[in-house]
Amino acid sequence: MKKVHQIKLRSTMTVGELTEEMRLAGVMQGGRVGKAVDILTEMFSDNSYTTFITLSGPLVPGGLRLVIRDLIKDGYVDAVVTNGANMVHDLVEAMGRTHYIGTTNVDDEKLFENGYNRAYDIFIESDTFVEIEGFIGKLVDDIPEENRNGIAIHEFLYEIGKRLDDDESVLKAAADKKIPIFSPGFLDSMLGIPLWLYSKQKRLVFNPLKDFDLLADMVFDAEKSGAIILGGGTPKHHTQYIHTLRDGLDAAIQISSARVEDGSLSGAPLKESITWGKLRKNKLEEKTATIFGEITSIFPFIVAATLEKMDKKVSS
Amino acid sequence: MKKVHQIKLRSTMTVGELTEEMRLAGVMQGGRVGKAVDILTEMFSDNSYTTFITLSGPLVPGGLRLVIRDLIKDGYVDAVVTNGANMVHDLVEAMGRTHYIGTTNVDDEKLFENGYNRAYDIFIESDTFVEIEGFIGKLVDDIPEENRNGIAIHEFLYEIGKRLDDDESVLKAAADKKIPIFSPGFLDSMLGIPLWLYSKQKRLVFNPLKDFDLLADMVFDAEKSGAIILGGGTPKHHTQYIHTLRDGLDAAIQISSARVEDGSLSGAPLKESITWGKLRKNKLEEKTATIFGEITSIFPFIVAATLEKMDKKVSS
Amino acid sequence: MKKVHQIKLRSTMTVGELTEEMRLAGVMQGGRVGKAVDILTEMFSDNSYTTFITLSGPLVPGGLRLVIRDLIKDGYVDAVVTNGANMVHDLVEAMGRTHYIGTTNVDDEKLFENGYNRAYDIFIESDTFVEIEGFIGKLVDDIPEENRNGIAIHEFLYEIGKRLDDDESVLKAAADKKIPIFSPGFLDSMLGIPLWLYSKQKRLVFNPLKDFDLLADMVFDAEKSGAIILGGGTPKHHTQYIHTLRDGLDAAIQISSARVEDGSLSGAPLKESITWGKLRKNKLEEKTATIFGEITSIFPFIVAATLEKMDKKVSS
Amino acid sequence: MKKVHQIKLRSTMTVGELTEEMRLAGVMQGGRVGKAVDILTEMFSDNSYTTFITLSGPLVPGGLRLVIRDLIKDGYVDAVVTNGANMVHDLVEAMGRTHYIGTTNVDDEKLFENGYNRAYDIFIESDTFVEIEGFIGKLVDDIPEENRNGIAIHEFLYEIGKRLDDDESVLKAAADKKIPIFSPGFLDSMLGIPLWLYSKQKRLVFNPLKDFDLLADMVFDAEKSGAIILGGGTPKHHTQYIHTLRDGLDAAIQISSARVEDGSLSGAPLKESITWGKLRKNKLEEKTATIFGEITSIFPFIVAATLEKMDKKVSS
Repeated sequence: MKKVHQIKLRSTMTVGELTEEMRLAGVMQGGRVGKAVDILTEMFSDNSYTTFITLSGPLVPGGLRLVIRDLIKDGYVDAVVTNGANMVHDLVEAMGRTHYIGTTNVDDEKLFENGYNRAYDIFIESDTFVEIEGFIGKLVDDIPEENRNGIAIHEFLYEIGKRLDDDESVLKAAADKKIPIFSPGFLDSMLGIPLWLYSKQKRLVFNPLKDFDLLADMVFDAEKSGAIILGGGTPKHHTQYIHTLRDGLDAAIQISSARVEDGSLSGAPLKESITWGKLRKNKLEEKTATIFGEITSIFPFIVAATLEKMDKKVSS
Repeated sequence: MKKVHQIKLRSTMTVGELTEEMRLAGVMQGGRVGKAVDILTEMFSDNSYTTFITLSGPLVPGGLRLVIRDLIKDGYVDAVVTNGANMVHDLVEAMGRTHYIGTTNVDDEKLFENGYNRAYDIFIESDTFVEIEGFIGKLVDDIPEENRNGIAIHEFLYEIGKRLDDDESVLKAAADKKIPIFSPGFLDSMLGIPLWLYSKQKRLVFNPLKDFDLLADMVFDAEKSGAIILGGGTPKHHTQYIHTLRDGLDAAIQISSARVEDGSLSGAPLKESITWGKLRKNKLEEKTATIFGEITSIFPFIVAATLEKMDKKVSS
Repeated sequence: MKKVHQIKLRSTMTVGELTEEMRLAGVMQGGRVGKAVDILTEMFSDNSYTTFITLSGPLVPGGLRLVIRDLIKDGYVDAVVTNGANMVHDLVEAMGRTHYIGTTNVDDEKLFENGYNRAYDIFIESDTFVEIEGFIGKLVDDIPEENRNGIAIHEFLYEIGKRLDDDESVLKAAADKKIPIFSPGFLDSMLGIPLWLYSKQKRLVFNPLKDFDLLADMVFDAEKSGAIILGGGTPKHHTQYIHTLRDGLDAAIQISSARVEDGSLSGAPLKESITWGKLRKNKLEEKTATIFGEITSIFPFIVAATLEKMDKKVSS
Repeated sequence: MKKVHQIKLRSTMTVGELTEEMRLAGVMQGGRVGKAVDILTEMFSDNSYTTFITLSGPLVPGGLRLVIRDLIKDGYVDAVVTNGANMVHDLVEAMGRTHYIGTTNVDDEKLFENGYNRAYDIFIESDTFVEIEGFIGKLVDDIPEENRNGIAIHEFLYEIGKRLDDDESVLKAAADKKIPIFSPGFLDSMLGIPLWLYSKQKRLVFNPLKDFDLLADMVFDAEKSGAIILGGGTPKHHTQYIHTLRDGLDAAIQISSARVEDGSLSGAPLKESITWGKLRKNKLEEKTATIFGEITSIFPFIVAATLEKMDKKVSS
């Protein structure tokens, strides 16, 4: 058995140098962060991996928009599976509106009267969601009507993404790179009602079963398959579930603050997914890291360290 | 300011007598449980309420199948908004298969080899999900083909429910009572792949935007609107979101173990929903209870106590 | 393997009838609540058990003062192991001051200016803690000076308890019944500074090692040993730790909302305690219940149901 | 209102460069990590601060032993307030035994039979705690007997520390630097029983009220006072509580995974401490960071970034 290594800190050490100390420490959540860097480095370096990233919680408004965009742009992920909200917030920024640094220490009735919505400590002007109705309407108008009849959700998000004029956009980066964005609960987002109203006046019909065509092809074609699971919800489940078609993932990291004890999939450790055929045999100890924590305080360190580790592999 | 009441216990006290002690205590999660009984009693007694119940986490396999069925059968809820999984597990029981009392203290690789899936401490035979493919296929065959083209998810669940022969079924009870079941992420369930495979051979096309027609009608028509929010995920968000069409809910209770601090909607307190127009003004203190906890250990007490309180109102 | 039982609710069912339904359900936290009732019934019925109860978190101000008092008064527990705070709050009530039903939705700077302290949604007048200084001073004055030199903490709490004139007091009930109250971190309470100031003027010297004499005797003498672990902290650890002197507890329930994943003992499941010799072999599955949840919303149900179950045993 | 900054990652960026990106993002837990670096930089740079660090949870066995030692050695902290366990684990390493990288995925009964104790995923040989009895006995023997009669806990820990021959030891570093280590629940550690047994044969009497003398002097003398609160329990409360003697802390960061909703102090946000006079007025927004998370995965980044930021201040 290996000894717990005692972490040594230095001023101006790189993120990768510190996560390597944590990997050697080997225990607690710090040890898992270190291990996650190794797993991600393998996923990103080995071309035989098809890599899925799942997004739940307010990651785009929480400061991770460019982190996600760059993972797409740099070719590190092959598919995104997201809640609807992160794509809505990507559009919010793409249309020139923004998210504000707020506080939880606030009178919510007054805040609402002053024209703000709140997600934890992020504020957003309420009229943003009025404006987005017109914005999305114009984008949808531009999609040829014949393509709007029975469109898969990933196709729709592709059509939107390729019509955006914002280099910082996740949707645009994915469209540019032809990386599909799946969103099984997409209509349960702030675009649900606007798109429904649109469909009352002009043609717009979604066909969500069609999304399975591409998803299934991707997991069938994958030589190896990996997942970066950020949060729970439908994005996590959908990604794990589709992998039952191929005896499970070959590698995965997850970051979640959800409880194990209420039995929901959001909090389920990767260990449990073995029993569903969602994770391949004998991968648990070496190729997975189940990290307890909040995403914005952990994932940036893991990605920065992974980029560094990959550079070192190349240069060595 | 009211003093904290000190709870007094007695042998053979009824559930309602104990939750009334907790209501008087007035603080901590116990106080909120007591308050939730009052709020539910109002929702269930006052016919002007349209009441939504949302289901996330393994509630049907966790022992709450009849609790939910009875809320439907007895006319206490007017709409169900659920993750897909609870409906799948309702079908599992309806087709004569079952859920087993397992343990978390298990070797998951062996468990899988022995033919079981695990959700926390619930076991289920893996071949159940093979069998369900044929079972659902026959049910769908029986739906007239013209109705299978562009079907809303609540319509599909109604068609399934009315074809079940199991009085304990949530789906059947809802169909019998014409209570709609909405499930915005329905295809992200163990039926997603079977239904997709079905759609490759026979006609089956879902139109999820169509679900908004009925949902919107319900919230527009509601004189008052209430929600019982069990867990987070798309069911919680969808229910709150549709209420932006009518300036918010009039009353709500929620039970969740999700964290506030990761900013996800699953953990958001009802207070935050004021800023989104999902909860009416001046309702927070009197008409909401945000309860931290796990559902199966709390919700049965609240419902049993509510039934008792309603009986007392009637008889007094 | 047993099937998950589906819980059936009825109006005016007793608490014990409902927890029995939950026990039969057998899974999730509801199942553990049901199981805890069985374990407590055994502890309370079988005289060979020495039963410890541990108290952390604001249980006395949270409405459980009489619940704890009655467990002592009725002879169900043989020792209390508590944080200091619960005893301070017991004194607050004993001197005629009280705790108020507050809210978390408050401006804390204003609240403080208005003379209130806040613990979650419990308010308490700040001057209560000025008044308690004189109150405790008089009580200590009344303890013969020779007894104040090298006094164990449980002896001190006994001396205080027997001088209180409040039948609702936990301290008094314990003194009356000669049930020891241990508090390994007692001086880390709102009495720490007042007692330190007292010791600057008059004789008062604590000897905390002396507490081990009685604790050790109790676990050595116990034929069987059980624990009701409410929350974490020093009370939980101390109780488990002292049982290393006798190869561990024979039975235990715990209710805690602490995370497993940060490695602290507060969140550790009873399973882990096996490896420390704190829980006897082969007891885990039958004689323990590790419940995730908040105490005031769960423990009253367990106790009321246990009282009922014991009555039924007697009358049958 | 400031906009949420979108974090930009680069390979080989330093830890401080990344936490600065997070600080600018300004929201969610990532934003709080960034803010904590600023607060710590102020505490460490401004000599008018007296800085307390509190330790709960398995930090020393979890890989943070040298991180804590260096904060002491480099003069950044003026007092340590700790649970007993971290000091026991420091002694374990000092006597040449160690902690092992284990797993939570284990049969605990077998693990115990094989001679290991487990704390989450950290393993330790059970006989370590037999050996420590002799080890501590010899150290205590070496303390002059007259000093062992009525010794404060911080004095005892100083006597132990100065007798250790291990440059990596927290206890030794603190003794060398004359930094006091307070531990209000010290005897509730794996040394409680060995020290009690020792006291049965030779003189050893603790006087815990005596610890308040130095603690009170420190907070009275502090021009400004700051706290680094790692975890909850008695170390957190004790540090906050002693600051009621001076109208509260001037600055504080805390990292905790404990819930707010069970009302325990462990989970209480720094905001709540205002109402107890534990945090000075008008400090909340600028001088505190309440971080939700697990310590080993977050604190090393904060410290490394703080060291870097201080170097930059010096060199600029």
